[in-house]
Amino acid sequence: MKLWAKNTNVQKEVEQFTVGNDRELDMYLAPFDVLGSIAHITMLESIGLLSNDDLSTLKKELVKIYGEIERGEFKIEDGVEDVHSQVEYLLTQRIGEAGKKIHSGRSRNDQVLVDIKQYLRNELKQIVLLVEQLFGTLQKLSEEHKEKLIPGYTHLQIAMPSSFGLWFGAYAESLVDDMELLLAAYKVANKNPLGSAAGYGSSFPLNRSMTTELLGFGALNHNVVYAQMTRGKSEKIVAMALASVAATLSKFAYDVCLYISQNFGFISFPDHLTTGSSIMPHKKNPDVFELIRAKCNKLQGLPNDLTLLTNNLPSGYFRDMQITKALIIPAFEELTDCLQICNYMLQHITCKDGITQDEKYKYIFSVEVVNNQVLEGVPFREAYKNVGLAIEDGNFEVPENIHHTHEGSIGNLCTDRIKAEMEKVIKGFDFEKVDTAIKSLIK
Amino acid sequence: MKLWAKNTNVQKEVEQFTVGNDRELDMYLAPFDVLGSIAHITMLESIGLLSNDDLSTLKKELVKIYGEIERGEFKIEDGVEDVHSQVEYLLTQRIGEAGKKIHSGRSRNDQVLVDIKQYLRNELKQIVLLVEQLFGTLQKLSEEHKEKLIPGYTHLQIAMPSSFGLWFGAYAESLVDDMELLLAAYKVANKNPLGSAAGYGSSFPLNRSMTTELLGFGALNHNVVYAQMTRGKSEKIVAMALASVAATLSKFAYDVCLYISQNFGFISFPDHLTTGSSIMPHKKNPDVFELIRAKCNKLQGLPNDLTLLTNNLPSGYFRDMQITKALIIPAFEELTDCLQICNYMLQHITCKDGITQDEKYKYIFSVEVVNNQVLEGVPFREAYKNVGLAIEDGNFEVPENIHHTHEGSIGNLCTDRIKAEMEKVIKGFDFEKVDTAIKSLIK
Amino acid sequence: MKLWAKNTNVQKEVEQFTVGNDRELDMYLAPFDVLGSIAHITMLESIGLLSNDDLSTLKKELVKIYGEIERGEFKIEDGVEDVHSQVEYLLTQRIGEAGKKIHSGRSRNDQVLVDIKQYLRNELKQIVLLVEQLFGTLQKLSEEHKEKLIPGYTHLQIAMPSSFGLWFGAYAESLVDDMELLLAAYKVANKNPLGSAAGYGSSFPLNRSMTTELLGFGALNHNVVYAQMTRGKSEKIVAMALASVAATLSKFAYDVCLYISQNFGFISFPDHLTTGSSIMPHKKNPDVFELIRAKCNKLQGLPNDLTLLTNNLPSGYFRDMQITKALIIPAFEELTDCLQICNYMLQHITCKDGITQDEKYKYIFSVEVVNNQVLEGVPFREAYKNVGLAIEDGNFEVPENIHHTHEGSIGNLCTDRIKAEMEKVIKGFDFEKVDTAIKSLIK
Amino acid sequence: MKLWAKNTNVQKEVEQFTVGNDRELDMYLAPFDVLGSIAHITMLESIGLLSNDDLSTLKKELVKIYGEIERGEFKIEDGVEDVHSQVEYLLTQRIGEAGKKIHSGRSRNDQVLVDIKQYLRNELKQIVLLVEQLFGTLQKLSEEHKEKLIPGYTHLQIAMPSSFGLWFGAYAESLVDDMELLLAAYKVANKNPLGSAAGYGSSFPLNRSMTTELLGFGALNHNVVYAQMTRGKSEKIVAMALASVAATLSKFAYDVCLYISQNFGFISFPDHLTTGSSIMPHKKNPDVFELIRAKCNKLQGLPNDLTLLTNNLPSGYFRDMQITKALIIPAFEELTDCLQICNYMLQHITCKDGITQDEKYKYIFSVEVVNNQVLEGVPFREAYKNVGLAIEDGNFEVPENIHHTHEGSIGNLCTDRIKAEMEKVIKGFDFEKVDTAIKSLIK
Repeated sequence: MKLWAKNTNVQKEVEQFTVGNDRELDMYLAPFDVLGSIAHITMLESIGLLSNDDLSTLKKELVKIYGEIERGEFKIEDGVEDVHSQVEYLLTQRIGEAGKKIHSGRSRNDQVLVDIKQYLRNELKQIVLLVEQLFGTLQKLSEEHKEKLIPGYTHLQIAMPSSFGLWFGAYAESLVDDMELLLAAYKVANKNPLGSAAGYGSSFPLNRSMTTELLGFGALNHNVVYAQMTRGKSEKIVAMALASVAATLSKFAYDVCLYISQNFGFISFPDHLTTGSSIMPHKKNPDVFELIRAKCNKLQGLPNDLTLLTNNLPSGYFRDMQITKALIIPAFEELTDCLQICNYMLQHITCKDGITQDEKYKYIFSVEVVNNQVLEGVPFREAYKNVGLAIEDGNFEVPENIHHTHEGSIGNLCTDRIKAEMEKVIKGFDFEKVDTAIKSLIK
Repeated sequence: MKLWAKNTNVQKEVEQFTVGNDRELDMYLAPFDVLGSIAHITMLESIGLLSNDDLSTLKKELVKIYGEIERGEFKIEDGVEDVHSQVEYLLTQRIGEAGKKIHSGRSRNDQVLVDIKQYLRNELKQIVLLVEQLFGTLQKLSEEHKEKLIPGYTHLQIAMPSSFGLWFGAYAESLVDDMELLLAAYKVANKNPLGSAAGYGSSFPLNRSMTTELLGFGALNHNVVYAQMTRGKSEKIVAMALASVAATLSKFAYDVCLYISQNFGFISFPDHLTTGSSIMPHKKNPDVFELIRAKCNKLQGLPNDLTLLTNNLPSGYFRDMQITKALIIPAFEELTDCLQICNYMLQHITCKDGITQDEKYKYIFSVEVVNNQVLEGVPFREAYKNVGLAIEDGNFEVPENIHHTHEGSIGNLCTDRIKAEMEKVIKGFDFEKVDTAIKSLIK
Repeated sequence: MKLWAKNTNVQKEVEQFTVGNDRELDMYLAPFDVLGSIAHITMLESIGLLSNDDLSTLKKELVKIYGEIERGEFKIEDGVEDVHSQVEYLLTQRIGEAGKKIHSGRSRNDQVLVDIKQYLRNELKQIVLLVEQLFGTLQKLSEEHKEKLIPGYTHLQIAMPSSFGLWFGAYAESLVDDMELLLAAYKVANKNPLGSAAGYGSSFPLNRSMTTELLGFGALNHNVVYAQMTRGKSEKIVAMALASVAATLSKFAYDVCLYISQNFGFISFPDHLTTGSSIMPHKKNPDVFELIRAKCNKLQGLPNDLTLLTNNLPSGYFRDMQITKALIIPAFEELTDCLQICNYMLQHITCKDGITQDEKYKYIFSVEVVNNQVLEGVPFREAYKNVGLAIEDGNFEVPENIHHTHEGSIGNLCTDRIKAEMEKVIKGFDFEKVDTAIKSLIK
Repeated sequence: MKLWAKNTNVQKEVEQFTVGNDRELDMYLAPFDVLGSIAHITMLESIGLLSNDDLSTLKKELVKIYGEIERGEFKIEDGVEDVHSQVEYLLTQRIGEAGKKIHSGRSRNDQVLVDIKQYLRNELKQIVLLVEQLFGTLQKLSEEHKEKLIPGYTHLQIAMPSSFGLWFGAYAESLVDDMELLLAAYKVANKNPLGSAAGYGSSFPLNRSMTTELLGFGALNHNVVYAQMTRGKSEKIVAMALASVAATLSKFAYDVCLYISQNFGFISFPDHLTTGSSIMPHKKNPDVFELIRAKCNKLQGLPNDLTLLTNNLPSGYFRDMQITKALIIPAFEELTDCLQICNYMLQHITCKDGITQDEKYKYIFSVEVVNNQVLEGVPFREAYKNVGLAIEDGNFEVPENIHHTHEGSIGNLCTDRIKAEMEKVIKGFDFEKVDTAIKSLIK
């Protein structure tokens, strides 16, 4: 059953190739398809294109289908092409011809668009919550271990004193910048394309502002040609935001894999969270972090994959757009997994004490000693020379303690200020408005 | 002359390879390097690490150098490694040893970082202004030609009535979403890394909030390890925003190249803005738009190039980061060129009249006729059948005029609302604050 | 059951995250895992590390499992980590402890490597055969329609006479160059890593040349550290070759989607192979070619995705490598689908006659007329001027027929020579050697 | 001066935008442009389109210009659009109107194509020679240091004994596989497009086989539409090969940067080849290898950049293709630099002795000891248990020496066999044929 069917049958080979695994992916869109339809028919009734009775009957049945989807009872049956067809099919089965009326004033093009926009904003919300959670864990670890020094590297050469406080805190702050991109992506995705029909609007007097409000969208994709153009473009911008989070995770995972190596030995995890070998007792393979890195590196290719897919196509709908789903949907799942397991693993991390007491890290304190002399009034060049000579003569002594006080330094991590910055960005999302709208729709 | 020189000389081959064209690129950073130094020494004086006299002398000289840069009189001399060295060299030449004091409490790492951040926000500002200008042009063309219909395509098949109003307006609205990304990028770039030194902070009691304010930054990159981590990351996020603008331009250019083809013939440009051949008189090669497309397609690879460059490096500075300049600086120039020439060309575009009167575009009105019957009370399936039969029998008649009224449709372009959305996003930038800060610094 | 199990249990969350959908992907490696094991034990016996009896028992059972795989009766059971474990598990179930002996002198690292290398070369073979088939179809169409002219475009501007013969023939020849890359990829993939163990070889006196011969590999990955390094690298090089084929297909699909548009109208397909609408009777949406294009554009991102995954990792195995399977295996399936459906569709293509008789294509013959005058002795500049004036005065006449004779031109397609070039490249593959080796192994 | 000039002048803004830095890039094509012209006129004379006298005059002058290019005396003058125009301009200046005759039967499209193809094959030759040289250096180092053990890592965890012999040898062998791709790219690039004119051939009876031979090409791009299609495609395939070499270099550089870190300390370079700090005496920043890595990572983005540039364009020439030069030409320069400096640096590398005597590397020998017991007849499971217990009890003893004998292992590096494989691939290039052809042309 296809909504666009001509009389001639489409060849089986063609159908197989064109449908592919699209029906499985459409399952992710099912709840949003129903919500879109409820909003659409509510609006149709308001402009006189649907009777009040039809609206009642249709809405009641759609709310029921929504419940079935929520409970995992919905499926796209064999021979049914996509989620839109399945919903229409269920409706006509249950309430007869009236079921087909949900399609008036719409095209599959704006129908799938409004599904995807809702899907994107919903998935972005889940990512935002997980990022916030990981941010909290990193900040907590930063505070917990703020006294423990580690060597800081430049060029992977031992360079300056650093700390676990700085290390964890850095990745927490990195997520604040990623959150800015998530917010931009959310704003782009959270706009209503419904009513753009096949990309050229409709001669029906649709009320697009009304569906915007009913679905809780932040704004309208006004121009109908642009509304169609957001297909692929929205996914790409969302992918950029996901890639930014993935880059932070991947980099963190890289550090973890390095620091757990016996050549560093800064951190460890319990045996049951690593893999190893009983005849190589020191071996603790950080498989989880290697796979976080790998998956997050793959995710960083997503914006480019979407660019390749959508680039150099003129304006107007193309079937090519179907493939965007096959790229973006698994990406959300993968990033979700990575954020969750990373957060889980960090509950069990052990940070070694006394790392910088190792003789090989001695000279990370040399700048420290120079600066101390400067603060005591010795001119810089002289202080520098003094320390250089002490080192040359083997008389260099590590200072008893280090005293860094400025904003963001070892002794002043600014945890609260960074938290405040994160909260400021998160306030930009308007999740509640969406929740309220959806509750109203399915009431 | 190199700030980090050891006694041993670095081999000539090594120097050539490592410096490369870096000095040319550093010229773009010169004004920002001086501004960063003025802010830095002002702060140093406030915490007692520089005498008031030294501050006066140094600042006076730096303001002078800033003027020289503005007037194009500054250059990085042969044998001088980079812009930081050149500025220090000029200072010591002119005021003696005191010149070297600008370096206290800093590392080249945070120095170049604060240069790049200022550079990025400044270039973003130029892009924002050019995007706004192009937005204005597109909106103006959209209103001017709103009555002229063109066929709308799906699958590049003739499908529905569209208009030049919709077409230009769509690309204008596309720039609104791109602007959201530019804003996110600006926020990420507009944070102060100064004081993070080599990426691990300093034992001097620096006042980083003070330099943040002096340089007009929107916020601080608090954590010093994170501050260093923003190298490469900021460029990548900025590149994503540039790529988004580039994608809009490239798609528009694609449409232009299609519509100017004789097989479409929707638009044209004067002879002196195209290339051609006197024995193929209809030939009007749209070289400019082909090159806009090509350059903007290249630009869309930039985020990926930066990902390849920065990915899978552990935390801490690496010399690899030098290459980010070679990627991001030419990109700004290229996008600027494309925005300017596109805006220039659009002043001269001709939009053909009466396009849809061509017989081959007849059936784009069929949905229109079906809808009209529905609005007159005919059930949809019946109206659809009527029109289908009329077409089959060769009796299909094109309606006299089309009447689209909903938001974003042919007859209701929402130009003002879209403009309001653009202005709302642009308000998020805080260019004035930066301008004021800089004026104060060089006073 | 895991081959590397320590006493402690790995946490469930960790297991779920690390295994993912890896077992499904491992199913693709199953036959090659068994073949690798047969070769390995045959070699072990030859160096005295396995008794002749054990070899007989193990081989008999492995050949049986191979048959089960071929017949679709093999599966990786719940709780079994991967294909290697499943095969070992079946063996020990059926023949007891001896089953574990297939693991001596091997590591999972070289085991999965030898599986992947065999998988890659086998899949490449399928691609080569499909490319050859499509090449044949394109050449046939080129010959069939060689008399039918179409306009040739430069800048998408009507420029010169071309023909369907040239058009189909061009894509056929494009596949010859793609085949060069497939051959290079095959040579890289068709080397034996077995015996490299965990990437550092073994102190057992393995005979790696023997397993190379038994498995029909073209050569040995000699250096064991390099053998491990080919993981990811082989997949990436193979992906480059697939991307090259995909680029040809995608470009061809683009042309098809353009030429089927009513604004060109050069070709068509029967209704049952396109989608459409009964009230827009001329609409023939080329969904199949849009999806070929989309899938092939996605495929072109694959080399980059693999680069992101594998780049900036030091030498030695990392768990990251597991994810290469999730990238390369679906890619083969997708390209196979595209090649098959493209070939299928081309059996049904209609190429319109008389296209260039349309008035708008008149001037494509102007260069022709100039050249004719030149061949008759008129100096070029004069001939050019004559034709220019004729056009200006409206007296330009289209020549009766066109006469192109040089190699590769409309009148001289060089179909046979291009075919000979293709055959020369294909001869470089040595599929028979592999087939013979496998037959021997499972005898 | 433009070859395609219409009467109207192209606007200055347009000219600036469209020409860009193209003239600088064209300088790289200059010698090949002249060679192409000599071959072309020689052929023109053979088919009667040029008099014998004209041929003599033109050829003499072209050979002279070729010499000027070789000696660095040639430049593209202001106001001259490209290299083709400059050569024609010089000819007409020196020998009058006859100079324009080099243009008959050609278009700028096939002229630039034949220039690029020659350029690509020539640059590939330089890369091949440098790769061969680096291969030699790596093999030499592998043999020199084959007795020195280092720990081998899996998951960056200390795992098994490895050696400098294996490490250097691995990268040498990696270059063999890269060479396969270089060869495929060379074959694709080394085909003659001349005579395809604007992409649709010519009605002149050109002899394309003759120019193929004159220019020493390996084959003809037969189909003229395909010949045009190779623009961009050839560059992309060449870029894949360059990216493969770059990946090997980048990975090697990564290892170097890791191994020179004090946490590994396996290798070092003299002070004058690294950068450092006199108060951090152990600091030896491997800037050169960081920049090799960075530049080679950038290079790995090149195939994708070229894909973005050329993808989704229908067949036929577009001005977009101009930008391919701006991508591929600097890439050759960059890779050349990286290969040269890497080779230079390796002349000065120091490989530390006795690394594995460090207590922390003790257990890398545990598998060794298990295997030794197995070879003495102890069943594997028992041997494994013995060693496990010895380790647990603190009685594990490192074996006196390790004895690896199989192909590609520590004790059997197969240096000669790998060298033979490299030579076999290199034999596939036919540089001499090209050299001979060129010598004949300019005689």
